[in-house]
Amino acid sequence: MTKKWVYLFNEGSKEMRDLLGGKGAGLAEMTNAGLPVPPGFTITTEACLSFFDNNRQFPPGMWEQTLEALKTVEQQTGKKFGDPRNPLLVSVRSGARVSMPGMMDTVLNLGLNSETLKGLAQLTGNERFAYDAYRRLIQMFGRIVKRIDGEKFEHILDEYKEQTEGKRDTDLTTEMLKDVVADFKALYKSELGEDFPEDPYEQLRQAVMAVFDSWYGKRAVDYRNFHKIPHDWGTAVNVVTMVFGNMGDDSGTGVAFTRDPATGEKVLYGEYLQNAQGEDVVAGIRTPKKIAELEKDMPEVYEQFVKVAEMLEKHYRDMQDMEFTVERGKLWMLQTRSGKRTAAAAVKVAVDMVREGLITKEEALLRVDPAQINQLLLPRFDPRAVEEAHKAGRYLAKGLNASPGEASGIAAFDADTAEEWGQAGKAVILVRPETAPDDVHGMLKSKGILTQRGGATSHAAVVARGLGLPCVAGCEAIRVDPEKKLFTVNGRVLKEGDLVSISGTTGEVFAGAIPTIAPDFKKETDLITLLGWADEVRRLGVWANADYPRDAIRAREFGAGGIGLCRTEHMFFEEERRPIVVQMIMAETEEERQECLDRLLPFQREDFEGIFRAMDGCPVIIRLIDPPMHEFLPPREELLEEVTRLRCTGENPEELARKEKMLRVVESMWEVNPMLGLRGCRAGIMYKGLTEMQTRAIIEAACNVTKEGVDVHPEIMIPLVSHINELKLEQEKLEKVAKQVMAEKGVEVDYKFGTMIEVPRAALTADEIAQYAQFFSFGTNDLTQMTYGISRDDAEGKFLLQYVDRGILPVNPFQVLDRDAVGQLMKICVEKGRATRPELEIGICGEHGGDPSSIEFCHLIGLNYVSCSPFRVPIARLAAAQAALKERATVTVHKDV
Amino acid sequence: MTKKWVYLFNEGSKEMRDLLGGKGAGLAEMTNAGLPVPPGFTITTEACLSFFDNNRQFPPGMWEQTLEALKTVEQQTGKKFGDPRNPLLVSVRSGARVSMPGMMDTVLNLGLNSETLKGLAQLTGNERFAYDAYRRLIQMFGRIVKRIDGEKFEHILDEYKEQTEGKRDTDLTTEMLKDVVADFKALYKSELGEDFPEDPYEQLRQAVMAVFDSWYGKRAVDYRNFHKIPHDWGTAVNVVTMVFGNMGDDSGTGVAFTRDPATGEKVLYGEYLQNAQGEDVVAGIRTPKKIAELEKDMPEVYEQFVKVAEMLEKHYRDMQDMEFTVERGKLWMLQTRSGKRTAAAAVKVAVDMVREGLITKEEALLRVDPAQINQLLLPRFDPRAVEEAHKAGRYLAKGLNASPGEASGIAAFDADTAEEWGQAGKAVILVRPETAPDDVHGMLKSKGILTQRGGATSHAAVVARGLGLPCVAGCEAIRVDPEKKLFTVNGRVLKEGDLVSISGTTGEVFAGAIPTIAPDFKKETDLITLLGWADEVRRLGVWANADYPRDAIRAREFGAGGIGLCRTEHMFFEEERRPIVVQMIMAETEEERQECLDRLLPFQREDFEGIFRAMDGCPVIIRLIDPPMHEFLPPREELLEEVTRLRCTGENPEELARKEKMLRVVESMWEVNPMLGLRGCRAGIMYKGLTEMQTRAIIEAACNVTKEGVDVHPEIMIPLVSHINELKLEQEKLEKVAKQVMAEKGVEVDYKFGTMIEVPRAALTADEIAQYAQFFSFGTNDLTQMTYGISRDDAEGKFLLQYVDRGILPVNPFQVLDRDAVGQLMKICVEKGRATRPELEIGICGEHGGDPSSIEFCHLIGLNYVSCSPFRVPIARLAAAQAALKERATVTVHKDV
Repeated sequence: MTKKWVYLFNEGSKEMRDLLGGKGAGLAEMTNAGLPVPPGFTITTEACLSFFDNNRQFPPGMWEQTLEALKTVEQQTGKKFGDPRNPLLVSVRSGARVSMPGMMDTVLNLGLNSETLKGLAQLTGNERFAYDAYRRLIQMFGRIVKRIDGEKFEHILDEYKEQTEGKRDTDLTTEMLKDVVADFKALYKSELGEDFPEDPYEQLRQAVMAVFDSWYGKRAVDYRNFHKIPHDWGTAVNVVTMVFGNMGDDSGTGVAFTRDPATGEKVLYGEYLQNAQGEDVVAGIRTPKKIAELEKDMPEVYEQFVKVAEMLEKHYRDMQDMEFTVERGKLWMLQTRSGKRTAAAAVKVAVDMVREGLITKEEALLRVDPAQINQLLLPRFDPRAVEEAHKAGRYLAKGLNASPGEASGIAAFDADTAEEWGQAGKAVILVRPETAPDDVHGMLKSKGILTQRGGATSHAAVVARGLGLPCVAGCEAIRVDPEKKLFTVNGRVLKEGDLVSISGTTGEVFAGAIPTIAPDFKKETDLITLLGWADEVRRLGVWANADYPRDAIRAREFGAGGIGLCRTEHMFFEEERRPIVVQMIMAETEEERQECLDRLLPFQREDFEGIFRAMDGCPVIIRLIDPPMHEFLPPREELLEEVTRLRCTGENPEELARKEKMLRVVESMWEVNPMLGLRGCRAGIMYKGLTEMQTRAIIEAACNVTKEGVDVHPEIMIPLVSHINELKLEQEKLEKVAKQVMAEKGVEVDYKFGTMIEVPRAALTADEIAQYAQFFSFGTNDLTQMTYGISRDDAEGKFLLQYVDRGILPVNPFQVLDRDAVGQLMKICVEKGRATRPELEIGICGEHGGDPSSIEFCHLIGLNYVSCSPFRVPIARLAAAQAALKERATVTVHKDV
Repeated sequence: MTKKWVYLFNEGSKEMRDLLGGKGAGLAEMTNAGLPVPPGFTITTEACLSFFDNNRQFPPGMWEQTLEALKTVEQQTGKKFGDPRNPLLVSVRSGARVSMPGMMDTVLNLGLNSETLKGLAQLTGNERFAYDAYRRLIQMFGRIVKRIDGEKFEHILDEYKEQTEGKRDTDLTTEMLKDVVADFKALYKSELGEDFPEDPYEQLRQAVMAVFDSWYGKRAVDYRNFHKIPHDWGTAVNVVTMVFGNMGDDSGTGVAFTRDPATGEKVLYGEYLQNAQGEDVVAGIRTPKKIAELEKDMPEVYEQFVKVAEMLEKHYRDMQDMEFTVERGKLWMLQTRSGKRTAAAAVKVAVDMVREGLITKEEALLRVDPAQINQLLLPRFDPRAVEEAHKAGRYLAKGLNASPGEASGIAAFDADTAEEWGQAGKAVILVRPETAPDDVHGMLKSKGILTQRGGATSHAAVVARGLGLPCVAGCEAIRVDPEKKLFTVNGRVLKEGDLVSISGTTGEVFAGAIPTIAPDFKKETDLITLLGWADEVRRLGVWANADYPRDAIRAREFGAGGIGLCRTEHMFFEEERRPIVVQMIMAETEEERQECLDRLLPFQREDFEGIFRAMDGCPVIIRLIDPPMHEFLPPREELLEEVTRLRCTGENPEELARKEKMLRVVESMWEVNPMLGLRGCRAGIMYKGLTEMQTRAIIEAACNVTKEGVDVHPEIMIPLVSHINELKLEQEKLEKVAKQVMAEKGVEVDYKFGTMIEVPRAALTADEIAQYAQFFSFGTNDLTQMTYGISRDDAEGKFLLQYVDRGILPVNPFQVLDRDAVGQLMKICVEKGRATRPELEIGICGEHGGDPSSIEFCHLIGLNYVSCSPFRVPIARLAAAQAALKERATVTVHKDV
């Protein structure tokens, strides 16, 4: 028996998404629910895969099953495929497991030929309609199935349109359309050396093959690479009876959501066009009406549609995005799927549906993409300012919202200028016709990117998302002239240095600046509700990285349960302290150095006191100084240039002597690979007194605030440990100072001692390290750098983003934790560390601590907490809850098996 | 029952070395063999450990057992401890599991006091002898047991010597010695506030404690740290009846080897002193006679000694280093142990003993330290030139041979000058009073180090050995004046810039240069024999790293079975090629770049042809270009300085424009951490055409030499892979070119495709990598850098050598493979790689491939081969054989258990 390759809609269900694709499963589900779906069937994704495995041959039996299914459809519709008297017309539509909008192909009106055309004209009493449908078929078939340049068809059409008054499709007369058909057929023949196939079965066969082929079309492959969709899923093919919304005023077509996808409000939301086909909506020839108007135009249809919508939402237990056509007063449902929605809507719909009893809290938690929450919490344009900008005529154009976020800045038209201005601290928007790898250094220093050309997977879009920069791409309304350093839009000219504002969230571009506002977390009541549910579910703690008291306060507001990383070196960079740090580094005697350390101590202590107060009752992990000391001195190149210049001019000999001395020190400290040099605990070990000073500041601060009644839990963290002996040495020094300070102050502080795990060796020898460390914190930024042998500073501009773009790396491992290797090290580390010390507290403080996929991994390997930037705490709370829920589901499945 | 803490010599054996120490086990073995050993006993190492565990208390029962053993010795000798009429005198000597020469303490003549002194005088009929023995006891006891400054005793002694004519110890009269004793006792009392203990048992008790304590003396701890001897072994204490070689002309003392330790020749070799004690030999007061003279002086004793020596060598089946004393015509054996020997002697003795049927080939292989072989194969001074230098009076002094190797160069007296000259390509000998961490940057650029002060574990010695530099340390005969930049020696003055030659192998220092000669491997017939045996035993292949045909030829001579690493970038650096490489990097068009690549192709092809011919029949692994491209351009700082200068002076605008352009390119390529930047396969991926050109050169060369009849096995190796997709991409490009070239040439080449494993991620995902790689080669230099997060370039001078010195790291992981973490990664890699591809060929090409300990590890984890520099191939052959033999031994032991 041959395999079943073809499923009638009534043979499928929503559970068969992998086999039938999203669209096929949806049509099947609706059919079985008794909804009005045009009869049809689905050729499976397995058939597609078999087609590619089999040198582009249909698998045995597939075509026979297709013909049989077609017969059933003929019976269901009472029409016959290729029958001039009552012709059945079908569309052939792709449909993969997940939606890949616009990436694959569709052919409509199959079954039309010179004979059936006449039948259609007769049956509909509309010859113009029939010829229009026929010319569409030839055009689509030629372009999609036969790869004839679509411009050539458009060119012919344009010539006829020129002859009309309105110069639009709809202005073409029946006679004109007949000529168009003749010209299209001639073009077809001259391009391919063969006639347009009159045999409907041949049309169908070739269209099915073309849809299969579109799975490996360049656009589709690029899209899958970008969205990490496996190439071995294949697409299903849906063969659906054609229904026509353009058969008069009792016909129409539309799309609608069961709730408002922007706000989440529970209202039917959408638009429709009377007497039109789906394509016409897309073409934007006429302005669609709001869906509510349908009630006036066709009250019965509207009533039916409202019921269908309610039923579908209940059935799928989620907001639906539906496509429908009304053919001569009869409603046909063409598609339903979960509707895409804004972050705000996602949260509101999820919370509302729980209140409505439609879904559980757990389901609600799984309905919101944690990454989306970012949008609710990032600074964004003040809506009133946007309104004013519109009123003041500053709105310029709308492009593709390629990377979310909103920013204002001065326009730069080349990467070098953008880099220069960016480095000088100016807010820059880089404006380019399109971007290329050569531009990345400028993008790195810009606040946002605006391009004239390119889509969601263009270089600009990919890199901007990679960098977390707002980007409006493919804004074709503007004309960028990089030579003249300006762009024009609707007759306006914006020059280099002019202020521009872009919204990567909406795609809008404005002249001038638009002030941004910080969102108010407290007012996000639905989000707060949802996160409350998340906290009930999650096992992972969520802490925050905060270097200053103000960050710590914000972190607590967002729900952080502790500080996972307080970097002490930032405190060294502050204006009044840096000269002391420089003097310490340049010190020629032990005494001088110690004196500098003594002067730094009160500053550090004060910082710590502030953070401890803000985090009353919560743990605070303080990392001892990490960067190489030469980072506190001026750059070598700057000094070298200055010294060479002063030597050359002979002016200011005192200044020269001073700079020469500084240069000598900088050169003696200079490192080829500073990331792997004298920093972290190595600096603590080699620079006498540093660890002691920092420890003293921490413990003194802890003692002082304890006396104020603050409940303080400091955890002292040693960075960049690669060998147990480094940790041992630092611990001995530190313990001594801590005891001494506590004795001086007469206060016992409950502090912990631990280490970053950021060097592969530390992870691999975690059993030894845990002998001294009471806690571990994964520094996955450095751990990723060393595990990959990639310096992030160098790589992102030079090859890393290109690697991701070209699919050499599946993702940027600095954004999404690489489970295969970095994760493997983490797992080894957790197992070995806990074998030595079962109660070992383990967390993560690298940037990955705020990335949902990475958070899931941290959950799976049993970390105690993730720590991320304060703004990402809500994301992490939700992601941690989702990880716990997904694990539960997996466990349940395993139990079932 | 209490534990047995004390063993009489006849209760022990050579197998009990761990418990009784090396000396104790040797004395026991000789005693049981019926040799004349002064009666005595050994307090075990366990007692020592228990002493430290127990707050420096003797373990229960130990002292009682000591007294009991002493009673037995009294019976054996017929003397009594503390008996004035016939006093037993004993020595107390340390003796750990391994010899730690001079590191721990010995006290002689215990049992003497004012009473027994008289008995001794009477018995020997020599009052002077008795008082001399007594003053020696007080001096040693005071210094060693009571830590009185030894200078103070010497000072008293010197004052009396001044009064004599000869001004030597031996010139002191009996009366003088009586005064010395009185003064010593007074000194003792004034220093300690107590009298010198007259009770012999108290003397013994305190001496035993002092020997225990010397285990944790600073010298001993440093020595163990340096030699990687565990601190938890402890020392045994040997209590031995005193015998005296200074009782007249029928007495004497000496040391002898059963074979010549310098050449290995089978002759009794040593020296002795008539009427003298061991100390006198050390003190160098009289010149000892050759051992052969003993035959004339005491023919019977000599005959007996020769027999003893023969017996001991047969018994121990190794060359022995023996100490003996003749007391009034009676031979006493005081120690026997395996004799230290030169590399040449080690090889000859091992090979000879096999021929003599004394040991097996396997034993012979285990007798030679692979590291020693290095001495036989390194360039060394031409012996005739050394002879001439001596004759010409250019010999200056002899210091400690602290780090082997021989070098000539100009003297520099500070590290900065040494660095500057070294960088300028001059051969520099850094001469310092002693060195400190501040000097390391200069040491790194020197050819050799000479210091006035410091021993085998001084900073200079440690660092020099770490760097593989010749070093003569503690050359006290020279006076270094770093201010005046000169050193004086015996009235001669050598100034900065003068030529100096040092032999770190012998410790000799010469004025002027001494030419070095390459040793002739072909003439080392014993070594060749031994290595032939090694080849029969070893499982590991030994290959060599060679970039040029001449290296490949040498590698084969030394026995290499293949080339494990041929670095192609060295070929790019050669004079006529570099301008083309620079042009390629600066190329502004694809065409220009391709043109440069086309011009480089013939050079590369020619190089490969040469290597293939040299390695006819053997595999040759060629690594595609690895370093960052900017290494081929001038350094950024140099250009910056030049551009700034030219801008400032306004001269030569063409030159300025050229340099500015170059600077722009260099800056665009500049990387913060070049080691982790755009290099290795990343360059191959990002620079179009590079991989293709190199592949073409390799395959064309292989085809060409195949036509000549050469049997060629190229293996193409991709560096710095961190993700499987990198390898896949390169493989696809490479395969295409290879097929094309083979088709063009009409020759099939049996080539392999593989990768370096030098990034932790590659090791961790070896199962994936092995899908494409047919071979792996561990690049343990980079793998160590990334696993530790340590940049070797930066670290060695800045903290790494100090880390080793301070014991923070047990060894320099760039010299000896870190089994704990880097080795763990290698093991994971081997297991995962072979799981995917069981026949996977795995080797190592990092520097560790020539280090015996690392080679052993490579053997244990099942690598196919090690690859090292040609000069280290013999070492590796032997080390590989030893690894196989040691494994066999372990397996046998396991079987027994």
